[in-house]
Amino acid sequence: MRIGILGGTGPAGRGLAVRLARAGGEVVIGSRHAERAADVAEQLVASWPAHPLTVAGTSNESAAGCDLVVVATPWDSAVPTVKPLADRLEGKVVVSMANALVRDGREFVALLPARGSVAASIQSPLPRSLVSASFHHLPASEMEKLDAPIVADVMVCSAHPEATTATLALIDAVEGLRGVDAGSLAQAAPIEAFTAVLITINIRHKVHAAVQLSGYGDG
Amino acid sequence: MRIGILGGTGPAGRGLAVRLARAGGEVVIGSRHAERAADVAEQLVASWPAHPLTVAGTSNESAAGCDLVVVATPWDSAVPTVKPLADRLEGKVVVSMANALVRDGREFVALLPARGSVAASIQSPLPRSLVSASFHHLPASEMEKLDAPIVADVMVCSAHPEATTATLALIDAVEGLRGVDAGSLAQAAPIEAFTAVLITINIRHKVHAAVQLSGYGDG
Repeated sequence: MRIGILGGTGPAGRGLAVRLARAGGEVVIGSRHAERAADVAEQLVASWPAHPLTVAGTSNESAAGCDLVVVATPWDSAVPTVKPLADRLEGKVVVSMANALVRDGREFVALLPARGSVAASIQSPLPRSLVSASFHHLPASEMEKLDAPIVADVMVCSAHPEATTATLALIDAVEGLRGVDAGSLAQAAPIEAFTAVLITINIRHKVHAAVQLSGYGDG
Repeated sequence: MRIGILGGTGPAGRGLAVRLARAGGEVVIGSRHAERAADVAEQLVASWPAHPLTVAGTSNESAAGCDLVVVATPWDSAVPTVKPLADRLEGKVVVSMANALVRDGREFVALLPARGSVAASIQSPLPRSLVSASFHHLPASEMEKLDAPIVADVMVCSAHPEATTATLALIDAVEGLRGVDAGSLAQAAPIEAFTAVLITINIRHKVHAAVQLSGYGDG
Protein backbone atom coordinates (compact mmCIF):
# COMPACT_ATOMS: atom_id res chain seq x y z
CA MET A 1 0.00 0.00 0.00
CA ARG A 2 1.26 3.46 -0.89
CA ILE A 3 1.00 5.82 2.05
CA GLY A 4 1.34 9.56 1.51
CA ILE A 5 2.41 11.78 4.38
CA LEU A 6 1.56 15.44 3.83
CA GLY A 7 3.98 17.71 5.64
CA GLY A 8 6.09 14.63 6.12
CA THR A 9 9.43 16.40 6.48
CA GLY A 10 8.72 17.44 10.09
CA PRO A 11 9.58 15.27 13.12
CA ALA A 12 6.14 13.63 13.35
CA GLY A 13 6.07 12.77 9.66
CA ARG A 14 9.63 11.50 9.53
CA GLY A 15 9.12 9.26 12.53
CA LEU A 16 5.96 7.77 11.10
CA ALA A 17 7.54 7.40 7.65
CA VAL A 18 10.41 5.21 8.82
CA ARG A 19 8.24 3.05 11.07
CA LEU A 20 5.63 2.47 8.34
CA ALA A 21 8.34 1.78 5.78
CA ARG A 22 10.04 -0.65 8.20
CA ALA A 23 6.66 -2.42 8.42
CA GLY A 24 6.67 -2.89 4.66
CA GLY A 25 4.73 0.18 3.59
CA GLU A 26 5.62 2.14 0.48
CA VAL A 27 5.87 5.66 1.89
CA VAL A 28 5.73 8.94 -0.01
CA ILE A 29 6.66 12.03 1.97
CA GLY A 30 5.01 15.20 0.76
CA SER A 31 6.07 18.78 1.35
CA ARG A 32 5.34 22.25 0.02
CA HIS A 33 8.85 21.93 -1.39
CA ALA A 34 9.19 18.71 -3.35
CA GLU A 35 12.98 18.93 -3.39
CA ARG A 36 13.15 19.18 0.35
CA ALA A 37 10.91 16.13 0.66
CA ALA A 38 13.17 14.23 -1.74
CA ASP A 39 16.22 15.18 0.35
CA VAL A 40 14.57 14.11 3.60
CA ALA A 41 13.43 10.81 2.08
CA GLU A 42 16.94 10.11 0.85
CA GLN A 43 18.41 10.88 4.29
CA LEU A 44 15.91 8.64 6.04
CA VAL A 45 16.66 5.71 3.75
CA ALA A 46 20.41 6.31 4.09
CA SER A 47 20.16 6.42 7.89
CA TRP A 48 19.07 2.79 8.13
CA PRO A 49 21.15 0.83 5.63
CA ALA A 50 20.29 -2.46 7.35
CA HIS A 51 16.64 -1.99 6.48
CA PRO A 52 15.37 -1.77 2.89
CA LEU A 53 13.06 1.21 3.44
CA THR A 54 10.89 2.43 0.58
CA VAL A 55 10.54 6.15 1.20
CA ALA A 56 10.26 8.73 -1.58
CA GLY A 57 9.81 12.49 -1.39
CA THR A 58 7.62 14.72 -3.53
CA SER A 59 5.10 17.55 -3.40
CA ASN A 60 2.09 17.40 -1.10
CA GLU A 61 -0.08 17.29 -4.21
CA SER A 62 1.64 14.16 -5.50
CA ALA A 63 1.68 12.54 -2.06
CA ALA A 64 -2.08 13.10 -1.91
CA GLY A 65 -2.35 10.65 -4.81
CA CYS A 66 -1.41 7.72 -2.60
CA ASP A 67 -3.90 5.07 -1.45
CA LEU A 68 -4.01 6.38 2.11
CA VAL A 69 -2.90 9.83 3.22
CA VAL A 70 -1.62 11.03 6.60
CA VAL A 71 -1.67 14.73 7.49
CA ALA A 72 1.49 15.45 9.49
CA THR A 73 1.79 19.20 8.98
CA PRO A 74 1.88 21.57 11.95
CA TRP A 75 -1.67 21.88 13.23
CA ASP A 76 -2.26 25.36 11.85
CA SER A 77 -1.17 24.32 8.38
CA ALA A 78 -3.40 21.26 8.21
CA VAL A 79 -6.51 22.89 6.74
CA PRO A 80 -4.65 25.14 4.26
CA THR A 81 -2.73 22.04 3.13
CA VAL A 82 -5.67 19.69 2.57
CA LYS A 83 -8.28 22.14 1.29
CA PRO A 84 -6.86 22.53 -2.23
CA LEU A 85 -6.37 18.74 -2.38
CA ALA A 86 -10.01 17.87 -1.66
CA ASP A 87 -10.60 16.34 -5.10
CA ARG A 88 -7.47 14.18 -4.92
CA LEU A 89 -8.42 13.00 -1.44
CA GLU A 90 -12.00 12.13 -2.35
CA GLY A 91 -13.04 8.68 -1.18
CA LYS A 92 -9.72 8.13 0.61
CA VAL A 93 -8.81 7.49 4.20
CA VAL A 94 -7.10 10.62 5.54
CA VAL A 95 -5.40 10.25 8.92
CA SER A 96 -5.01 13.40 11.03
CA MET A 97 -2.09 13.28 13.46
CA ALA A 98 -1.56 16.96 14.35
CA ASN A 99 -2.15 18.44 17.78
CA ALA A 100 -2.98 22.09 18.47
CA LEU A 101 -0.39 22.92 21.12
CA VAL A 102 1.56 25.94 22.18
CA ARG A 103 4.71 26.02 24.28
CA ASP A 104 4.40 27.94 27.52
CA GLY A 105 7.65 27.86 29.48
CA ARG A 106 8.37 24.29 30.54
CA GLU A 107 4.94 23.08 29.42
CA PHE A 108 2.89 22.58 26.32
CA VAL A 109 -0.67 23.80 26.57
CA ALA A 110 -3.53 22.41 24.48
CA LEU A 111 -5.36 24.91 22.31
CA LEU A 112 -8.96 24.34 21.31
CA PRO A 113 -9.51 24.45 17.53
CA ALA A 114 -12.80 26.09 16.57
CA ARG A 115 -14.29 22.72 15.57
CA GLY A 116 -12.97 21.04 18.72
CA SER A 117 -10.09 19.17 17.10
CA VAL A 118 -7.65 19.35 14.21
CA ALA A 119 -9.24 16.18 12.84
CA ALA A 120 -12.69 17.77 12.75
CA SER A 121 -11.14 20.84 11.11
CA ILE A 122 -9.75 18.56 8.40
CA GLN A 123 -12.94 16.56 7.91
CA SER A 124 -14.92 19.73 7.30
CA PRO A 125 -13.25 20.81 4.01
CA LEU A 126 -12.96 17.13 2.97
CA PRO A 127 -16.60 16.00 3.21
CA ARG A 128 -16.02 13.14 0.77
CA SER A 129 -12.90 11.81 2.51
CA LEU A 130 -12.85 9.33 5.38
CA VAL A 131 -10.96 11.18 8.09
CA SER A 132 -9.57 9.39 11.13
CA ALA A 133 -7.45 10.78 13.96
CA SER A 134 -4.47 8.82 15.24
CA PHE A 135 -0.72 8.70 16.01
CA HIS A 136 -0.91 11.67 18.40
CA HIS A 137 0.78 10.28 21.48
CA LEU A 138 3.92 8.81 19.96
CA PRO A 139 7.22 10.51 20.79
CA ALA A 140 8.45 11.74 17.39
CA SER A 141 12.15 11.64 18.18
CA GLU A 142 11.92 8.01 19.29
CA MET A 143 9.77 7.05 16.32
CA GLU A 144 12.52 8.18 13.99
CA LYS A 145 15.12 5.99 15.72
CA LEU A 146 14.32 2.62 14.22
CA ASP A 147 16.54 0.89 16.78
CA ALA A 148 14.61 2.38 19.74
CA PRO A 149 11.88 0.02 20.90
CA ILE A 150 8.50 1.69 21.28
CA VAL A 151 5.64 0.04 23.10
CA ALA A 152 2.39 1.95 22.89
CA ASP A 153 -1.34 1.67 22.48
CA VAL A 154 -2.37 3.97 19.68
CA MET A 155 -5.90 5.30 19.68
CA VAL A 156 -7.92 5.75 16.50
CA CYS A 157 -11.22 7.56 16.16
CA SER A 158 -13.34 8.32 13.14
CA ALA A 159 -16.88 8.83 11.91
CA HIS A 160 -16.12 6.21 9.24
CA PRO A 161 -15.66 2.54 10.24
CA GLU A 162 -13.68 1.97 7.05
CA ALA A 163 -11.18 4.65 8.11
CA THR A 164 -10.88 3.16 11.58
CA THR A 165 -10.20 -0.29 10.14
CA ALA A 166 -7.56 0.98 7.71
CA THR A 167 -5.83 3.05 10.38
CA LEU A 168 -5.83 0.19 12.90
CA ALA A 169 -4.21 -2.01 10.24
CA LEU A 170 -1.44 0.56 9.71
CA ILE A 171 -0.75 0.76 13.45
CA ASP A 172 -0.81 -2.98 14.07
CA ALA A 173 1.72 -3.47 11.28
CA VAL A 174 4.30 -1.50 13.27
CA GLU A 175 6.24 -3.53 15.82
CA GLY A 176 5.37 -2.58 19.40
CA LEU A 177 2.25 -0.62 18.52
CA ARG A 178 -1.29 -1.79 19.20
CA GLY A 179 -4.25 0.01 17.64
CA VAL A 180 -7.28 0.78 19.79
CA ASP A 181 -10.65 1.79 18.35
CA ALA A 182 -11.56 4.78 20.52
CA GLY A 183 -14.89 5.66 18.95
CA SER A 184 -16.21 8.55 16.89
CA LEU A 185 -14.36 11.62 15.67
CA ALA A 186 -15.67 13.47 18.76
CA GLN A 187 -12.92 11.68 20.69
CA ALA A 188 -10.26 13.45 18.62
CA ALA A 189 -10.59 16.57 20.79
CA PRO A 190 -9.50 14.92 24.06
CA ILE A 191 -7.01 12.62 22.30
CA GLU A 192 -5.28 15.56 20.65
CA ALA A 193 -5.38 17.73 23.78
CA PHE A 194 -3.91 14.96 25.92
CA THR A 195 -0.72 15.20 23.87
CA ALA A 196 0.00 18.41 25.79
CA VAL A 197 0.07 16.41 29.02
CA LEU A 198 2.42 13.79 27.60
CA ILE A 199 4.86 16.33 26.19
CA THR A 200 4.78 18.26 29.46
CA ILE A 201 5.60 15.05 31.34
CA ASN A 202 8.40 14.37 28.86
CA ILE A 203 9.90 17.82 29.38
CA ARG A 204 9.49 17.74 33.14
CA HIS A 205 10.89 14.29 33.68
CA LYS A 206 13.29 14.11 30.71
CA VAL A 207 11.63 10.98 29.30
CA HIS A 208 9.99 9.87 26.06
CA ALA A 209 6.76 8.47 27.44
CA ALA A 210 4.03 6.83 25.40
CA VAL A 211 0.60 5.62 26.45
CA GLN A 212 -0.30 2.05 27.24
CA LEU A 213 -3.64 0.80 28.47
CA SER A 214 -3.53 -1.63 31.36
CA GLY A 215 -6.55 -3.89 31.64
CA TYR A 216 -7.08 -3.79 27.87
CA GLY A 217 -6.80 -7.17 26.23
CA ASP A 218 -3.92 -8.31 28.38
CA GLY A 219 -5.54 -10.73 30.76
CA MET B 1 -3.68 11.56 57.80
CA ARG B 2 -7.42 12.20 57.70
CA ILE B 3 -8.71 12.42 54.16
CA GLY B 4 -12.15 13.84 53.48
CA ILE B 5 -13.98 12.89 50.27
CA LEU B 6 -16.77 15.30 49.38
CA GLY B 7 -19.53 13.56 47.45
CA GLY B 8 -17.86 10.34 48.48
CA THR B 9 -20.91 8.11 48.20
CA GLY B 10 -20.72 7.92 44.38
CA PRO B 11 -18.69 5.29 42.51
CA ALA B 12 -15.56 7.45 42.16
CA GLY B 13 -15.55 8.42 45.83
CA ARG B 14 -16.25 4.92 47.09
CA GLY B 15 -13.49 3.40 44.99
CA LEU B 16 -10.96 5.96 46.17
CA ALA B 17 -12.12 5.63 49.78
CA VAL B 18 -11.44 1.90 50.03
CA ARG B 19 -8.09 2.11 48.24
CA LEU B 20 -6.86 4.99 50.41
CA ALA B 21 -8.13 3.27 53.56
CA ARG B 22 -6.41 0.04 52.47
CA ALA B 23 -3.21 2.08 52.19
CA GLY B 24 -3.57 3.16 55.82
CA GLY B 25 -5.45 6.41 55.37
CA GLU B 26 -8.18 7.50 57.76
CA VAL B 27 -10.98 8.28 55.33
CA VAL B 28 -14.07 10.37 55.94
CA ILE B 29 -16.76 10.19 53.26
CA GLY B 30 -18.89 13.32 52.99
CA SER B 31 -22.32 13.68 51.45
CA ARG B 32 -25.17 16.16 51.33
CA HIS B 33 -26.90 13.53 53.45
CA ALA B 34 -24.74 12.58 56.41
CA GLU B 35 -26.79 9.47 57.14
CA ARG B 36 -26.33 8.17 53.64
CA ALA B 37 -22.58 8.72 53.94
CA ALA B 38 -22.57 6.81 57.25
CA ASP B 39 -24.44 3.93 55.62
CA VAL B 40 -22.08 3.78 52.66
CA ALA B 41 -19.03 3.92 54.94
CA GLU B 42 -20.40 1.07 57.01
CA GLN B 43 -21.10 -1.02 53.88
CA LEU B 44 -17.60 -0.41 52.52
CA VAL B 45 -15.95 -1.48 55.76
CA ALA B 46 -18.23 -4.53 56.01
CA SER B 47 -17.43 -5.55 52.43
CA TRP B 48 -13.76 -6.20 53.20
CA PRO B 49 -13.64 -7.93 56.58
CA ALA B 50 -10.09 -9.13 55.94
CA HIS B 51 -8.86 -5.54 55.85
CA PRO B 52 -9.17 -3.19 58.81
CA LEU B 53 -10.43 -0.16 56.84
CA THR B 54 -10.98 3.13 58.64
CA VAL B 55 -13.85 4.75 56.75
CA ALA B 56 -16.45 6.98 58.39
CA GLY B 57 -19.38 8.85 56.84
CA THR B 58 -20.62 12.33 57.62
CA SER B 59 -21.76 15.60 56.03
CA ASN B 60 -19.68 17.31 53.36
CA GLU B 61 -19.16 20.14 55.82
CA SER B 62 -17.61 17.83 58.40
CA ALA B 63 -15.56 15.98 55.80
CA ALA B 64 -14.15 19.33 54.72
CA GLY B 65 -12.54 19.56 58.16
CA CYS B 66 -10.06 16.80 57.28
CA ASP B 67 -6.35 17.43 56.63
CA LEU B 68 -6.70 16.89 52.88
CA VAL B 69 -9.95 16.98 50.92
CA VAL B 70 -10.91 15.25 47.68
CA VAL B 71 -13.84 16.51 45.61
CA ALA B 72 -15.60 13.46 44.17
CA THR B 73 -19.03 14.91 43.43
CA PRO B 74 -20.50 14.82 39.92
CA TRP B 75 -18.74 17.52 37.93
CA ASP B 76 -21.69 19.92 37.90
CA SER B 77 -22.04 19.72 41.66
CA ALA B 78 -18.38 20.42 42.39
CA VAL B 79 -18.53 24.21 42.56
CA PRO B 80 -21.86 24.39 44.47
CA THR B 81 -20.40 21.88 46.94
CA VAL B 82 -17.08 23.59 47.63
CA LYS B 83 -18.14 27.25 47.46
CA PRO B 84 -19.87 27.40 50.87
CA LEU B 85 -16.93 25.47 52.37
CA ALA B 86 -14.26 27.95 51.25
CA ASP B 87 -13.37 28.96 54.81
CA ARG B 88 -13.02 25.37 56.02
CA LEU B 89 -10.86 24.52 53.02
CA GLU B 90 -8.54 27.51 53.43
CA GLY B 91 -4.88 26.58 53.30
CA LYS B 92 -5.67 22.94 52.53
CA VAL B 93 -4.85 20.70 49.62
CA VAL B 94 -8.09 20.08 47.68
CA VAL B 95 -7.93 17.35 45.03
CA SER B 96 -10.36 17.61 42.12
CA MET B 97 -11.20 14.26 40.51
CA ALA B 98 -14.39 15.03 38.58
CA ASN B 99 -14.66 14.99 34.78
CA ALA B 100 -17.20 16.96 32.77
CA LEU B 101 -18.64 14.20 30.58
CA VAL B 102 -21.96 13.43 28.98
CA ARG B 103 -23.14 10.10 27.67
CA ASP B 104 -23.97 10.06 23.97
CA GLY B 105 -25.11 6.61 22.86
CA ARG B 106 -22.21 4.19 23.20
CA GLU B 107 -19.72 6.96 23.96
CA PHE B 108 -18.92 9.53 26.57
CA VAL B 109 -18.15 12.97 25.22
CA ALA B 110 -16.00 15.53 27.02
CA LEU B 111 -17.66 18.85 27.80
CA LEU B 112 -15.61 21.99 28.18
CA PRO B 113 -16.18 23.78 31.51
CA ALA B 114 -16.14 27.56 31.18
CA ARG B 115 -12.76 27.76 32.93
CA GLY B 116 -11.34 24.89 30.88
CA SER B 117 -11.52 22.23 33.58
CA VAL B 118 -13.46 21.21 36.66
CA ALA B 119 -10.27 21.72 38.67
CA ALA B 120 -9.94 25.34 37.51
CA SER B 121 -13.63 25.82 38.31
CA ILE B 122 -12.92 24.62 41.86
CA GLN B 123 -9.76 26.67 42.32
CA SER B 124 -11.60 29.87 41.41
CA PRO B 125 -14.00 30.00 44.41
CA LEU B 126 -11.24 28.59 46.66
CA PRO B 127 -8.45 31.12 46.09
CA ARG B 128 -6.81 30.28 49.42
CA SER B 129 -6.86 26.51 48.89
CA LEU B 130 -4.20 24.47 47.10
CA VAL B 131 -6.15 22.73 44.36
CA SER B 132 -4.70 19.80 42.46
CA ALA B 133 -6.34 17.62 39.82
CA SER B 134 -5.88 13.86 39.91
CA PHE B 135 -7.47 10.38 39.99
CA HIS B 136 -9.40 10.95 36.74
CA HIS B 137 -8.45 7.91 34.72
CA LEU B 138 -9.04 5.15 37.25
CA PRO B 139 -11.94 2.77 36.58
CA ALA B 140 -14.27 3.38 39.55
CA SER B 141 -15.83 -0.09 39.59
CA GLU B 142 -12.42 -1.75 39.75
CA MET B 143 -11.16 0.67 42.37
CA GLU B 144 -13.93 -0.41 44.70
CA LYS B 145 -12.99 -4.09 44.36
CA LEU B 146 -10.05 -4.29 46.71
CA ASP B 147 -9.16 -7.73 45.37
CA ALA B 148 -8.89 -6.50 41.78
CA PRO B 149 -5.31 -5.54 40.96
CA ILE B 150 -4.99 -2.11 39.37
CA VAL B 151 -1.82 -0.97 37.66
CA ALA B 152 -1.88 2.63 36.58
CA ASP B 153 0.10 5.83 36.28
CA VAL B 154 -1.91 8.59 37.87
CA MET B 155 -1.29 12.12 36.71
CA VAL B 156 -1.33 15.09 39.07
CA CYS B 157 -1.32 18.73 38.12
CA SER B 158 -1.53 21.88 40.20
CA ALA B 159 -0.47 25.50 40.46
CA HIS B 160 0.84 24.66 43.94
CA PRO B 161 3.93 22.44 44.35
CA GLU B 162 2.79 21.58 47.89
CA ALA B 163 -0.49 20.21 46.52
CA THR B 164 1.33 18.19 43.88
CA THR B 165 3.63 16.67 46.51
CA ALA B 166 0.76 15.78 48.85
CA THR B 167 -1.31 14.26 46.04
CA LEU B 168 1.63 12.24 44.70
CA ALA B 169 2.16 10.85 48.20
CA LEU B 170 -1.49 9.74 48.38
CA ILE B 171 -1.23 7.98 45.01
CA ASP B 172 2.09 6.30 45.70
CA ALA B 173 0.70 4.88 48.94
CA VAL B 174 -1.84 2.84 46.96
CA GLU B 175 -0.55 -0.51 45.69
CA GLY B 176 -0.22 -0.58 41.92
CA LEU B 177 -0.52 3.17 41.42
CA ARG B 178 2.34 5.47 40.47
CA GLY B 179 1.97 9.23 40.71
CA VAL B 180 3.24 11.39 37.85
CA ASP B 181 3.74 15.15 38.17
CA ALA B 182 2.08 16.44 34.98
CA GLY B 183 2.65 20.15 35.46
CA SER B 184 0.45 23.14 36.10
CA LEU B 185 -3.32 23.24 36.57
CA ALA B 186 -3.61 24.09 32.84
CA GLN B 187 -3.05 20.36 32.23
CA ALA B 188 -6.28 19.53 34.07
CA ALA B 189 -8.32 20.36 30.96
CA PRO B 190 -6.79 17.67 28.73
CA ILE B 191 -6.42 15.19 31.62
CA GLU B 192 -10.11 15.50 32.50
CA ALA B 193 -11.26 15.41 28.88
CA PHE B 194 -9.19 12.31 28.13
CA THR B 195 -11.39 10.39 30.58
CA ALA B 196 -14.08 10.46 27.88
CA VAL B 197 -11.76 8.48 25.60
CA LEU B 198 -10.98 5.90 28.25
CA ILE B 199 -14.62 5.35 29.20
CA THR B 200 -15.56 5.10 25.51
CA ILE B 201 -12.86 2.46 25.03
CA ASN B 202 -14.15 0.64 28.10
CA ILE B 203 -17.72 0.62 26.77
CA ARG B 204 -16.69 -0.33 23.26
CA HIS B 205 -14.34 -3.12 24.21
CA LYS B 206 -15.97 -4.22 27.49
CA VAL B 207 -12.78 -3.63 29.48
CA HIS B 208 -11.69 -1.61 32.51
CA ALA B 209 -8.65 0.08 31.07
CA ALA B 210 -6.32 2.41 32.93
CA VAL B 211 -3.39 4.47 31.69
CA GLN B 212 0.22 3.51 31.97
CA LEU B 213 3.17 5.40 30.59
CA SER B 214 5.76 3.33 28.78
CA GLY B 215 9.21 4.87 28.67
CA TYR B 216 8.63 6.64 31.99
CA GLY B 217 11.00 5.56 34.71
CA ASP B 218 11.01 1.93 33.67
CA GLY B 219 14.40 1.51 32.15
